[in-house]
Amino acid sequence: MKLSQDIVDQFNRNSLYTTVGIQLKKAEDGRAEAVLTPNPKVCWPFPDQPHGGILFTIMDTTMAWAIQSLLEQGLSCTTIDLNIQYLAPAREGPYTCRAETTHQTRHLAFVRADIRDARDHPIASGQATFRIIKMDLV
Amino acid sequence: MKLSQDIVDQFNRNSLYTTVGIQLKKAEDGRAEAVLTPNPKVCWPFPDQPHGGILFTIMDTTMAWAIQSLLEQGLSCTTIDLNIQYLAPAREGPYTCRAETTHQTRHLAFVRADIRDARDHPIASGQATFRIIKMDLV
Amino acid sequence: MKLSQDIVDQFNRNSLYTTVGIQLKKAEDGRAEAVLTPNPKVCWPFPDQPHGGILFTIMDTTMAWAIQSLLEQGLSCTTIDLNIQYLAPAREGPYTCRAETTHQTRHLAFVRADIRDARDHPIASGQATFRIIKMDLV
Amino acid sequence: MKLSQDIVDQFNRNSLYTTVGIQLKKAEDGRAEAVLTPNPKVCWPFPDQPHGGILFTIMDTTMAWAIQSLLEQGLSCTTIDLNIQYLAPAREGPYTCRAETTHQTRHLAFVRADIRDARDHPIASGQATFRIIKMDLV
Repeated sequence: MKLSQDIVDQFNRNSLYTTVGIQLKKAEDGRAEAVLTPNPKVCWPFPDQPHGGILFTIMDTTMAWAIQSLLEQGLSCTTIDLNIQYLAPAREGPYTCRAETTHQTRHLAFVRADIRDARDHPIASGQATFRIIKMDLV
Repeated sequence: MKLSQDIVDQFNRNSLYTTVGIQLKKAEDGRAEAVLTPNPKVCWPFPDQPHGGILFTIMDTTMAWAIQSLLEQGLSCTTIDLNIQYLAPAREGPYTCRAETTHQTRHLAFVRADIRDARDHPIASGQATFRIIKMDLV
Repeated sequence: MKLSQDIVDQFNRNSLYTTVGIQLKKAEDGRAEAVLTPNPKVCWPFPDQPHGGILFTIMDTTMAWAIQSLLEQGLSCTTIDLNIQYLAPAREGPYTCRAETTHQTRHLAFVRADIRDARDHPIASGQATFRIIKMDLV
Repeated sequence: MKLSQDIVDQFNRNSLYTTVGIQLKKAEDGRAEAVLTPNPKVCWPFPDQPHGGILFTIMDTTMAWAIQSLLEQGLSCTTIDLNIQYLAPAREGPYTCRAETTHQTRHLAFVRADIRDARDHPIASGQATFRIIKMDLV
């Protein structure tokens, strides 16, 4: 499913993204990219550093968009499991997450993602397995 | 380090916990327990269901408290990597996360956690590795 | 499916188990237990210490038996992904692996396992997701 | 540490590699490559298909070589945890594993790897965290 800019804009207004500070930039051909400009409220215990759970959140949703970009209308995906590594402290945002689908079967999708800081240094790596489900996204 | 109720209360007022809806209940002897009463803003894409990143957030911080309860003053811990599985949809909160330290060395700590819904059904499982660092928590 | 002692004995003669040194002990009610008495050939790079890949092998197959013990005739399971932690060096065998199914749906099963040394100290922890497939085991 | 062909040849004669069917091809600049021509004994339960534990074994050791290629004399590395995904059945060998160090600190190294079959289709993906230790490799 091609995600039009209208759909992307609409999703970027969801309450989770605006609370946390996530914006999806693009999603096509099995890849997706999003940016985290963290709300100060989710920067804890270190000021100006988004909590690891917030980095996980952008990684998980960007992975889902990467997969979604390959699915036909009427299909969506949901996380089965995700493994995240924290390579370095998140000290200088905004943070860019890029996800890529590595393999897809009828019922499963496998995906990888990275998060980089404003200097393009890697701060987190992840891989995950998603289940493909019947559900209308829009 | 024994976490007094005063310290627990103080930490429960942090901006991440109040934004998301997390409350630490106790942390001692390598175990910790916390409760998520999710803020509706972080329930997306399904109303009333906390996003997987929010379940991850309570799991990660509860794991950290479980480890912290074993550390001497002047030491703290930080997540190296965490693997989370989503067993079932999170449809009925509040959600309780329990974490247990499985092994600790001088520099590393290993931990497991589960999240259960209001009916005590398991909805997420995780295991993680943390690094022990020199840092004053309070 | 109840695994009779005959079936267990038959499986214990498979070429992988005999090459490595694995023996399944029991599998029922979603749990399984197996013992590794490592063949010296798979103890590398440290003499008398089984390689991490061998510890993984007993964990993965014991997890599969734990799930298999819950499945009806005509169904089997295959690993989607597995996360293993090495808590401490494997210095004193034999090693016992115990696996437990934590949740099962129609298509997926979630499982955890531990490996302990001869002194009952934990040396590895894991969690995995399996896919349930149509296949006659015997 | 630059791994000379002599060192590579010497390591390729270790008992684990010859029992299983692994050959390290190269290791430099944080990357390593190895090939699995599986011994029929470790192909179980499906004939001609290496067990998932054997795919894990080549992934784990190739990751270690990737990291080793960056370390100074007197340092080595040991697996803390590894997450492996099985994307597709391993039906056509030999299988090539390529690993790449994604980040290294003084005490930790992060690494990713893939295994591809003879047709260059991906069959497994992994990411792992290693601890850097003082140990003479040779």
